[in-house]
Amino acid sequence: MYPTVELAEIAFYQAFEDASVEAMMAVWSGAAEISCIHPTGTVLVSVDAIRESWQQIFAGGSGVTIQVNVLREYASATQVVHLVEEHLSVTGNTAQQGHVFATNVYQLEDDGWRMVLHHGAPAPRPQPTSRAPTLH
Amino acid sequence: MYPTVELAEIAFYQAFEDASVEAMMAVWSGAAEISCIHPTGTVLVSVDAIRESWQQIFAGGSGVTIQVNVLREYASATQVVHLVEEHLSVTGNTAQQGHVFATNVYQLEDDGWRMVLHHGAPAPRPQPTSRAPTLH
Repeated sequence: MYPTVELAEIAFYQAFEDASVEAMMAVWSGAAEISCIHPTGTVLVSVDAIRESWQQIFAGGSGVTIQVNVLREYASATQVVHLVEEHLSVTGNTAQQGHVFATNVYQLEDDGWRMVLHHGAPAPRPQPTSRAPTLH
Repeated sequence: MYPTVELAEIAFYQAFEDASVEAMMAVWSGAAEISCIHPTGTVLVSVDAIRESWQQIFAGGSGVTIQVNVLREYASATQVVHLVEEHLSVTGNTAQQGHVFATNVYQLEDDGWRMVLHHGAPAPRPQPTSRAPTLH
């Protein structure tokens, strides 16, 4: 399916932009104990719960454009972690934008790389000076 | 230093409870390109920035008790990902509590396991029924 992590990640965000549940779930591992946290959401720990969450997100429908920057990559032979920055914008509506930090974990399976974890969280608006948060 | 991921993770949260910057930074890799996101905070991508953030968090001082549940583990020979749930409570003040989902990534180095990524995000209050978030 996805011979490299990069192709799996491109497919993940393309499925997101296309609002395609089938394409989305094809990126996820069907074998492993996958998990997904959407920004401000709770933890989802089954294929069914994760599929349902994307169905609900995609039900809104209209086009979302996502720009993804990989901030860090942590790699071993069979597992790769990407810390990414997602800039989401609703097509044709520049007022509706989202800024998300996500940790994506991929594992090498028999037929290629698949996602096993997606942990997304709201990112703060960029600050002119860096300040540490007071709440852990 | 830490012959297992579990011992590294215990040391991480013990350092957090003890508000010890030295013990905290001993858990982190000094070699790799480490990164840290505190809940609601921006991404920190250097040893100095991460150390400074813990110094500011610990400056508040008083005791925090942290209960940690490992929800998922994704393991390869040299890299392990833990998705954990953190329940933080300020000692002696049950009104001040925090609930955090965190993705912790560890790598096996020459002298044992070290943390390379900590991505913490606020968790919602438990809901009686599961609902998917509307915002990705």
